[in-house]
This record gives sequence, C-alpha cells and structure tokens, in this order.
Amino acid sequence: MTLTDPMKPTQKSKTELPPLLPLLAFGAHPDDIEFGCGAVIASETRAGRPAHFVVCSRGEAGSFGTPKQRMAEARKAASLLGATIEFIELDGDSHLEIRAAHAIKLAAIIRRIRPGTVLAPSLEENQHPDHWRLGKIVRDAARLARYGGLKELKRAPRHVIDQLFYYAVTAEAEPADISPVLIDISAPEILAIWTAAMTAHCSQVSALNYIELQLARAKLRGLRAGTGHAIALFPSDPLVFDSLSKTFHSARKF
Amino acid sequence: MTLTDPMKPTQKSKTELPPLLPLLAFGAHPDDIEFGCGAVIASETRAGRPAHFVVCSRGEAGSFGTPKQRMAEARKAASLLGATIEFIELDGDSHLEIRAAHAIKLAAIIRRIRPGTVLAPSLEENQHPDHWRLGKIVRDAARLARYGGLKELKRAPRHVIDQLFYYAVTAEAEPADISPVLIDISAPEILAIWTAAMTAHCSQVSALNYIELQLARAKLRGLRAGTGHAIALFPSDPLVFDSLSKTFHSARKF
Amino acid sequence: MTLTDPMKPTQKSKTELPPLLPLLAFGAHPDDIEFGCGAVIASETRAGRPAHFVVCSRGEAGSFGTPKQRMAEARKAASLLGATIEFIELDGDSHLEIRAAHAIKLAAIIRRIRPGTVLAPSLEENQHPDHWRLGKIVRDAARLARYGGLKELKRAPRHVIDQLFYYAVTAEAEPADISPVLIDISAPEILAIWTAAMTAHCSQVSALNYIELQLARAKLRGLRAGTGHAIALFPSDPLVFDSLSKTFHSARKF
Amino acid sequence: MTLTDPMKPTQKSKTELPPLLPLLAFGAHPDDIEFGCGAVIASETRAGRPAHFVVCSRGEAGSFGTPKQRMAEARKAASLLGATIEFIELDGDSHLEIRAAHAIKLAAIIRRIRPGTVLAPSLEENQHPDHWRLGKIVRDAARLARYGGLKELKRAPRHVIDQLFYYAVTAEAEPADISPVLIDISAPEILAIWTAAMTAHCSQVSALNYIELQLARAKLRGLRAGTGHAIALFPSDPLVFDSLSKTFHSARKF
Amino acid sequence: MTLTDPMKPTQKSKTELPPLLPLLAFGAHPDDIEFGCGAVIASETRAGRPAHFVVCSRGEAGSFGTPKQRMAEARKAASLLGATIEFIELDGDSHLEIRAAHAIKLAAIIRRIRPGTVLAPSLEENQHPDHWRLGKIVRDAARLARYGGLKELKRAPRHVIDQLFYYAVTAEAEPADISPVLIDISAPEILAIWTAAMTAHCSQVSALNYIELQLARAKLRGLRAGTGHAIALFPSDPLVFDSLSKTFHSARKF
Amino acid sequence: MTLTDPMKPTQKSKTELPPLLPLLAFGAHPDDIEFGCGAVIASETRAGRPAHFVVCSRGEAGSFGTPKQRMAEARKAASLLGATIEFIELDGDSHLEIRAAHAIKLAAIIRRIRPGTVLAPSLEENQHPDHWRLGKIVRDAARLARYGGLKELKRAPRHVIDQLFYYAVTAEAEPADISPVLIDISAPEILAIWTAAMTAHCSQVSALNYIELQLARAKLRGLRAGTGHAIALFPSDPLVFDSLSKTFHSARKF
Repeated sequence: MTLTDPMKPTQKSKTELPPLLPLLAFGAHPDDIEFGCGAVIASETRAGRPAHFVVCSRGEAGSFGTPKQRMAEARKAASLLGATIEFIELDGDSHLEIRAAHAIKLAAIIRRIRPGTVLAPSLEENQHPDHWRLGKIVRDAARLARYGGLKELKRAPRHVIDQLFYYAVTAEAEPADISPVLIDISAPEILAIWTAAMTAHCSQVSALNYIELQLARAKLRGLRAGTGHAIALFPSDPLVFDSLSKTFHSARKF
Repeated sequence: MTLTDPMKPTQKSKTELPPLLPLLAFGAHPDDIEFGCGAVIASETRAGRPAHFVVCSRGEAGSFGTPKQRMAEARKAASLLGATIEFIELDGDSHLEIRAAHAIKLAAIIRRIRPGTVLAPSLEENQHPDHWRLGKIVRDAARLARYGGLKELKRAPRHVIDQLFYYAVTAEAEPADISPVLIDISAPEILAIWTAAMTAHCSQVSALNYIELQLARAKLRGLRAGTGHAIALFPSDPLVFDSLSKTFHSARKF
Repeated sequence: MTLTDPMKPTQKSKTELPPLLPLLAFGAHPDDIEFGCGAVIASETRAGRPAHFVVCSRGEAGSFGTPKQRMAEARKAASLLGATIEFIELDGDSHLEIRAAHAIKLAAIIRRIRPGTVLAPSLEENQHPDHWRLGKIVRDAARLARYGGLKELKRAPRHVIDQLFYYAVTAEAEPADISPVLIDISAPEILAIWTAAMTAHCSQVSALNYIELQLARAKLRGLRAGTGHAIALFPSDPLVFDSLSKTFHSARKF
Repeated sequence: MTLTDPMKPTQKSKTELPPLLPLLAFGAHPDDIEFGCGAVIASETRAGRPAHFVVCSRGEAGSFGTPKQRMAEARKAASLLGATIEFIELDGDSHLEIRAAHAIKLAAIIRRIRPGTVLAPSLEENQHPDHWRLGKIVRDAARLARYGGLKELKRAPRHVIDQLFYYAVTAEAEPADISPVLIDISAPEILAIWTAAMTAHCSQVSALNYIELQLARAKLRGLRAGTGHAIALFPSDPLVFDSLSKTFHSARKF
Repeated sequence: MTLTDPMKPTQKSKTELPPLLPLLAFGAHPDDIEFGCGAVIASETRAGRPAHFVVCSRGEAGSFGTPKQRMAEARKAASLLGATIEFIELDGDSHLEIRAAHAIKLAAIIRRIRPGTVLAPSLEENQHPDHWRLGKIVRDAARLARYGGLKELKRAPRHVIDQLFYYAVTAEAEPADISPVLIDISAPEILAIWTAAMTAHCSQVSALNYIELQLARAKLRGLRAGTGHAIALFPSDPLVFDSLSKTFHSARKF
Repeated sequence: MTLTDPMKPTQKSKTELPPLLPLLAFGAHPDDIEFGCGAVIASETRAGRPAHFVVCSRGEAGSFGTPKQRMAEARKAASLLGATIEFIELDGDSHLEIRAAHAIKLAAIIRRIRPGTVLAPSLEENQHPDHWRLGKIVRDAARLARYGGLKELKRAPRHVIDQLFYYAVTAEAEPADISPVLIDISAPEILAIWTAAMTAHCSQVSALNYIELQLARAKLRGLRAGTGHAIALFPSDPLVFDSLSKTFHSARKF
C-alpha cells in the first residue's frame, strides 16, 4: 500500500548526455537510508539526478518516537536530501519476513520508478533483522522486475536496473565478502546536508550518538581514501566499465 | 637491468582533459600480459593512453621457444598492442623469489614511468610460482615508490599511483577474495588486436590451446555481463568515485 | 501434487556389481536441470543408471513460453536425457518460499525414489530466487528423509542418500565455499544429447544465448581439466573414499 | 642430497588394470608423514601401490631424540607402512625457507619417482613453520616437474602428476578453504599398522600424547562419516571424474 | 506457550562480587543443549550461576523416543546439570520456520529471565534444519529484547544481554567464520555430570554413538588446548575486555 | 644486535595473585607499536605489568625524520607508556625478508623476556611490507621458543607464551579471518598517555593525520562496543577460559 504520492521525476536533461535514470533507495525504517548513505543521495540529487525513497515501516517498534513523528521526520529528511519519498507497509517494524509477495511488491515499484541505481540495506545478518531481510527482498525484486511472465507485474513493462548497491546502516553491517567502492562525500555542502538530514530524525538522535557514529565512520573511510569523508557502498554484481578510465582512483594512501 | 630502451611517452593531450597517465603492466614471462589482459591494453592505447610493459624473465624455462625467440615475440605483441616494452632480470624464469631488492627495483621503474594504473599478475598461489610472486613484489613496489627515505630510490621523486589492478593469466588464478571489475572488450578491432598479440607468441601457441582458452574466458565473462567479451580485473584497493556515475553498470543480466 | 506418473526404475543389474541406485534431480523451473547439469544426467543414464526429474514449477513466470509449452519441452528434454520426470506444485514460479512443508514434501519423494545421488540447484543467493530456495529445501529434505518420527513421512521407510551435489545453473551461482568436483562430459554423444536436451526448450533458447553460455562454461572447465568439456558439481558433504584410487585425477593441467 | 637408496618400485600388475603409479609423500620432519596420514599410506601399500617417503630434515631441532635416532625411527616406520624412504637436506629442521632451488630439487625427485599421487603437508601457516613452507615448495615443485625448459631438470623427462593432496599434521593445520575428502581407514589391520608406525617414533611419543591425538582426530572424522576411523586429505585442485560413480559416498550421517 | 514453571533464580551472592546474571540456553530438541554444551552448563551452575533451558520442541520427529519420554529425559538432564527447564511450542520438531512471531516470543523469554549470557545452536545451515533456524531466531530475539517499541513485549522492561554464544551440536555445525573460544571442562566432576546428563537421554543414546562422539570432540579440543577436555563456543559479537588479563590463555600447545 | 639495555622487569607482586608475566611487543618501525596499540600498553603498565618493546628498524626509509630522531622519539614514547625498549637490526627499514634466522633471533628474545603476552603487527599483506613480514616472523618465533633442540637457542631455557595477539597499524591491516577482541581504553588518562606517546613521534605526525586516524578508529570501535574508545586485537589462537566469566561482555550495542 502506498501511503504517499508516487514520485514524479522531473529530470533536467543536459545537452550532450541522456538524462540520468533515477536513484531508488529502500529503507526498512524511517531513518535507515539517511544514516546509511544519506550523503550519497545528497551528492546525486545535487548533480541533477532524481532520487526516490521507499520506506518499508513507520518505525513503530523503535524505542523512541511515534510513527507519526517518524514519518514527518523522514519526509523532512528526504526533502533536505532532494528526494521524494513514499511509505509502504510490509509486515511492520521488527516483524519483516522474507516473502515472495514482498519481493513482487517491490518489483512493481522498481517497474514504476524505472531506476538506474537501486540502494538497499546490506545482507549481513548480524544487524537489525529488518535490515538484511529487506536487502534480500530488494535483491530478489530487482530480478523479478526483469522477468516477463509474473502476472502480478503485468501492469508495467519489464525493467532492467543498471546496478544494485548495498549500504551498511552500521559498521558491523558491512559485508565481508564484497569489495567496497568508496564515494567521496567531502564537499562541505554535502556533509552539511547529510548532517541536517540525520538531525531531522530528532526522536532518534536526541538520546543516542548515531550522528557522531556515522560521521566517524565516514571520516575514517575518507582518511583511508586520501580524502575528507567517504561512504562505502557494496555492489551486488561486478561493475562493468568501457575502459580503465581515470574517473576513479584507488583508496590506498598509507 | 634494462635490456631495452625506456618508454618515451608521447601522450596526445586533449583540449579539455589532462593527459592520461601511463599504464604500466608487469609480466613474469614474455606472454603473461598478453594472455592475461592484452585486450585491456589494446583498449587503453587506442584511447590514447601510453602503455609500457616490464617483462621479468625471458621465458627460458618454458617447454617451448628459445629466450631470443620469446623476446622477439613479446616485442611484436607489445607493438601490436601499442605498448613499449622492456625486459629486466630478477632471478630468472621459474626461479623468482620474493626479495626486498626486487621490490625496490620495480619501485624504481614505477618512479621512472610514473603511471596512473599498474597491472600485475594476481596473488593466488595455486598457479605458476613466478606469477603470484611477481604480483606480491609489484604490490610492495607500489608502496615503496611512495616512501621518501629509501636511499636506493633517491634518484627519482616519490610517485603515488592511482590504482593497482591484478590480472589473472588463467581462470584458476582469479582471486577469490576480491570482487572483480569487468572491462568490456567487445569491439571487433580490440578482439582482433588481442588475438593477433596472442598469436604473435608463436612458440607457445602452436602446441597448446591457450588462445582458445582465453577467448572462451572472455566470452563467458562477456555473456554474463550482457556484452560480447569482457576481461575481469581485480583492484588491490577500494575504488573511489566522485559520484555514483552512469559510466559503469552492473554485470547481472540473467 | 504429482502431475505425472512416478518413475518406475528398470535398472539393468550387472553380474558383479549391485544395481546403481537412481539419480534424483530437482529443478525449480522446467529447464534448470538441463541447463545446469544435463550432460551429467546423460552420462549417468547411458551407463545404465535410472534418473528421475522433479520439476517444482511450470515456469509460468518466465518471459517466454506458456506453462503447457514448457512442460512439453521439459518432458521431451528428460526423454532425450533418458530420465523420467514429474512436476510438483510448491508456491509457483518466482513465488517459492522456504517452508517446512515443502521440505517434507520433497523428503517424501526421496523416500519414494530412494536415490543414491541427489542433484539440486546451488545455494548461492545472488541468482534466481527460486533456485537457491529450492536448493535449501532439498538439502533439508535429504535430512528429513532419514528421520524416523515425522508423521507425514510414515508411509515410506527412512532413506539415507549417498550424496547430495549442487549444480549451478549459471556461472555466478557456483558456490564460493565448496571445492568443486569436475565430471568429464567430453564424449561427443554426451555433448550431442545435452545440446539436444537444451534445444528442446525452444521457448527459452530462441531469444537468448543460454546454450552458447553453457557450452562455453563447460568448455572452459574442460580446458582447465585437460579434457574437452566438463561440468562442475559441488558436494554438500565431504566425499568418502575407500582408497586414494586411480579412478580420479586432478584438474590442473596448466 | 639423497641419504638413502632411491626407491625401486616393484609394482605387482593386475591382469585388467594398468599398474598403479607410485604414491610420493613429503615430510618436513621424520614423523610428519606418519602422524599426518600414515594410515592412508598403509591402505595404499596393502593394495599393491608402491609408496616412497622424502623426509626433508633429520628432526635435529626437536625437543627429544638425536638425528640418528630419529632417522632410524623413520626408517622403521616407513618399513612398517610398506614404503621406501630417503632423507634430503634443505635448510635444516626449523630453518626451512621458501627457495626456488628447493622447489627445483623436489621437482627432480618427482621426475625420478614419477608418482600418480603426491602428498605434502598443508599450507595453513599457523603451524610448525617447516610444515607449510614444505607444502608450498612441493606445490611449486609439482608444477616445475611439468615444465620443459628448466636446465637443472633436463636429466629426467617431464612428468605430470595426477593429484596433489595436502595432509594436516595437526587439526589446526587443516585448510579452511579446501573441501576435504575422507579416506576410510577403519580396517583393524590398517589401524594397527598406523599405530605401530607412530609408535616407532619412540623418542617423540614417550613424553607426549601425539598418538592419542591422532587417533581421536581419525575417530571423530570416522564417526562423522558413518565409519570407524577416517583421515581427511585436501586436494590442491578439483578432482575430475568420468562419472558420478558409486565408488564414493558422502560423509553426512547425522 | 510455557509448559513448565518458569525459573525462579536463587543466586547465592558473594561478598565482593555482584550476583552472576543467569545463563539462558535455547535448544531445538530435548537433547541439543546437553550434547552441544552440557559441560559448560555444569561448570557455570557449580560456580553458583543460575541456568535456565528453553526447549523448543518435544523431539516428536526423532527416530527414537516418545515426546513424553523425551521431555522426562530432558527434565532429568537439566536437573543433573543444575538448570531449570521449560518447553515451548514453536512449529514443532522438524517443522521450524523463521518467523518474526517466534523471535518476539523468545525475546519475551529473554526479558523475563534477564540473562547475562545466552546460548543458542550455531547458524551453519548444513545441519538439522531446526538447529540453525533456532539459532537465527535467538539472534534476532536478543536484539528485539533491547528495542523499546514492540507492543507484544511491553509487559516486561527492555533487557540488554551481555553475550550471545553459539554452540555446535555436531562438529560440522561449527561456524567457519567465527573464531572460537574454548571453555576448559577437564575437571572430573564436570565430565561426570556431563556424561550423566547425556546418558539421561536414554531413548537417543541406546542406539547411537552420540556420547562417544561428543567426548571425542571435547577431548580433541582439550588436547589442542593443552588441557584434558574443552568445548568450543562461538561468540556472536566481539568480546570486550577491560584489560589483557591473565584470566585467559591461548590454545596453542603444539 | 641489541642496541639498548635489556628490560629489567620490576613487577610489583600483589598479595593474592602471582605477578603478571611481562608483555612483549614487536614493531617494524619506531612508531608502529604506539600507533597500533599504544593505549593497550598504557593500560597494562598502569595495572602493574612490565612491558618491553622490540623495534626492528630505525625507520630509516620513512619520508620524514632521521634514524637518530626516530629512535629518540621511540624511546620517549616507550617511556611515556611505561615500557622498556630495545632496537634490533634485521634487514633494515623496507628491506625486511622472511628468514629463518630472523625468527630464531626473535625466539631468543622471547626466551630472554619470557612474556605472557606477545603483540605483533597483523599478517594482512596489503599494508607496509615490513609489517606483515614481521608479524609472520614473530608468529614463527613464538613456536621456535618452545622447541628444545634448536642449537642457536640453547643459551636460554624453552618458553611457552600464553597468547599472541596481532595489532593492526591501520584499519586495512585488520585481519578478515580472525574475530577481534576489543580492549576498552576509554579511561581519560589512558587516552591522554596514548595521545602523548603518538605525539612523541614528532617527525611523523607533523605532516600527517595519523593521530586523528587512530583516534577515529578507536572511537568508532568504542561506540560500537558501547564504551568510549576501544582497540581491536586479533588472537592468533583460540582463547581458553576456565569459565564463561562475567569479566567480558559482548560488543553489540546497536
């Protein structure tokens, strides 16, 4: 069930390049996307790319904040990050199970948004049970969106995404079996937007040191990458390049 | 000891972009670079990037071909791929040991060539003993090239490379613990140049099915990546990106 | 629910050896067994071993082909491979979930067929969601078939299989944590039967390069094993041998 | 340097089958082969297969026993196991280094003995430093024995072994990244010969519980495999089979 | 549903130290805790720590013993080990599924017992399907017990456990990706109590060699640790120490 | 060669407990121990435990500082941490090779100091080549110190250490295959001493952000462990405990 209006992408096309396909990020709770990879979202939307968030619970099992508060916080944070947002209901906060019906529901969203990049929480199981379960459901959904015969999905044409990246809400959620790619988020305005988006989750951050934790993670990654701050993303599948271009460089500086 | 003239890079700078830093590839035997990643070299040099090969033996322990023949074959192959080449002597074919002096010697070459990208054989030990040993020596050399106090290296200023990628001469040499990136080599002219460069190693390919093996590997990788042919490279360190750009896409097509 | 007649094994016993216990292969979709390990089936049935396929959906979510077509194709392919076939209904194509009831249902089939060897899709999760889920259900079913107290299974006596092997429908489905064993399928008649069985899935192979992909995989494996073509299987549990016999040899030829 | 006479294989050929190629086992110290896989040797020699031991030190750095004693003990143990034995000198007990010259020396022995199967200590580094170093040297030697151009090896024709298996002298030396195969050694006479061969190393076993440890390991493996006792070996490369024969069965019994 | 009376902890506080928080052990079947880590329980209860068992089926799918017998055996074994016991119903023996409702039910028990240490079966999937599923449910439950907003759990205040350790019912259930800690259980009275507790499961041990298997495992671990017998536990999360104290020592003795 | 006086342990024994055995830390360069685990040293020495540093080069290949400066800095830092220090010469900075003679030299130091705990740089190879090589040499040395027959070591009696822990000089040097233990270093005086000891390496820290990097690492670890700051150490072998004591707790707080 879609609780908010669907995203209406308004991509500003550039002269030479085709418009960037939207970025679609899934979160299990109202603050997961922001804490896990908010700065990456800010960086993409500032570059003119549409971004859309799908939040799969209202955070109703958390220790702090009412569902209403948390949805308002998430809307504010998404707005700060330049993203549209919708809330869907799967099994409820801390009740998520891996069901085929969930994957089909998310596949329908993928077909509607037609993203280039999809972001989902990582699959490491030693974290909040909703996180990795959602990650697995998104992974399956990205496949189902490509298959032609699923009758529940007939309303929208098949869609093949370019890439699925996992983000890690906490450091222990970082996958041990996928080499990360690092996204440089050192620009002061990106850090400021990210911090503001995390701060928007007032009910969560007043009592805990979540923001400090995320900034420490990003700073440590950045120091290792020879830049200020960086966020690690974990590609589900090998990246394909046309050439060994100079658009990336390696992280080893020490 | 340098047996051939050093590379004289003649980069054609483009108007908007800084000239591409050279690509430097190390091989343990005269044909390793060509068989392991020759198509990637061809793709880079055709895009205007200088490439230089350092071959660390004359292949004198192989079952076929004399050292003189093999050096001639390697020179021809490098020329076909648009690369310069030099031969150095470490411990001799099938006699390579991991020595600090070797790493320092290779670090001096890195300081001389000042590459952006370095290619070396992979570190998986269940392959020809010279391959993984050379890979480890190159990895260490790329570090030593950055350190300021090594007296053997004082002649040339410190140099920090952008990236070290490992190539796998055979399929079983592909690292199990690094996520690959795939380089699309489907363009017919790239495949033709690569095949010609492998064929230049007449002494090796008359009796064995090496070329067929490499083309089958590249085709399989390409089919999985949704393209014609592809070669997997294995980054030593995390890749750093300024944005989740559309310049890459993921490999999953099935 | 069994949609076709159960297999009636008609083993031809040899004088010295006890008759070979049947081979039982499970597939999530009508073409999975054929594409993943069809040549192994052909090799076994030609050696006089009964083989039986259990296909757990009618492929109704695929992009091409109707369920009726696909079942007909599977029946033809099984017949070409010398195997009997039955279709069962679990949750439907692309809807499979891991349920205890499914494992019990498959355990009942194992008790009915009483196989020596069981084949199931591999457990790597980054593939079609039905594949690895079926693999896990089969793995559990092989255990439940041994347990004496399950009341749903009381109709048939307990059965202990000899071996469970996983097959990989695609290369990325090959398990990273199990050492493969390679089955030599180089005999021309085996390759011909396999190709015919894959080709029988007309609805799938007209638009895609599946057959080419599988033959390239098998050729690459074979080249590495010093033979023409080979298929990798992944044993669920350690293989036990009476001696270090000469009936196998290792794959390293380069 | 060869301290004892080379093995003179006296294989008893059977009518139908070609004679079994010799088994060649390398040990870093006089008792390593016996403790690590002595029962497997006994099983092979009783089946008519020649076996030869190459012991690469005289155990002179051990806490107990003189070199002379230890060589005598090893000779007695080899004799009990039905194997011939020779001692060679590399760098001395607890002084072994990985050198190309060592690999070439062992490759020459492989060319002389021309074994089907080679056994070497495992490569896990958290064990006696001589063990894994010897394992790596043997692995490289098995490759060099195949290469045609090594001038030090010209005296004997190239030789391609069938299989290289690693044995684990202690449980913590068992490789984590190779699936084991289990050899059934439950026959009472095999266990008796093995125990006698371990007991022959009087200088080592009077003060320590090595024999008890090895029998406990083998019993635990055997219980898990549904047999009495078993020893795990770890193949360096994938095993290749002509068929999914009934000559092996899987280990899972619980 | 709680079938027996809940534990009433009666900790004997010592003068200097705060009372030890209870140990809470979960088992999928009536004998799993005893076979997997019974000696650890005995060691803790003899040191004055309360222990409570939660058994999640009545073993009704086992090959031997009636549910009534098995519950009586489990009660006797728990009593021998100094632990209280309760039986709960999830999905039934061999029918366990991973459901959010199960995790919430176990979280409620954790909030009721308020343990310091929790023990659960390991997560390796190649074992009895109930074992690893229960382990995953307990892992999730230990998280949910900390979260404030779950309405099903409002009856009891939040509880943060100190540690979750996994035990391995069989050797193949030992996790490959967690470094074990070893608990010394060499004291004769501990071994005697453990053996008695395992023997209490008469219906299981008359026909099988389970006790012999577990004692062999513990002896092998002990020999490697330089002590008589030891049991390996696998911490779910890093252990935190105030200092590198002398209260532990490493296992390497060979 | 020992360049400074050996440590003279002056342990203050407590009434009830035996005196703590010394802590012995090895570093490849003058600042490695301080940056990698200085806070752990401070914590131990403040608890009355003797600590001794063995520095295996004078840092002469670094980009900054002369050997004389760096030795003075290291002496000052050791003094601040409450440790004695000696410098030895192996192959020189950035020239270290893995040689049996080095392991024997370090084993002699272990026999002289007779430590309970040994600290060494981690074995991950993608870091400064001297770090992991020294780690491997120390690991081997800890074994050789136990062996009775090494004639170079006859001057001092055999010594069995309690534990070998690896420290990671940088985050990428953290082992992927060993579960860490975390040492709580949150006490303000410990953090102050550690910072002072790192700052003592003036030649290294003026130009680089090493101190900031290490504090960020420790803070991130601490936040995850529910404490202020923590350092991860990686045990070479399983830790053995007499009981599941309350002296440790797990790290999971989120």
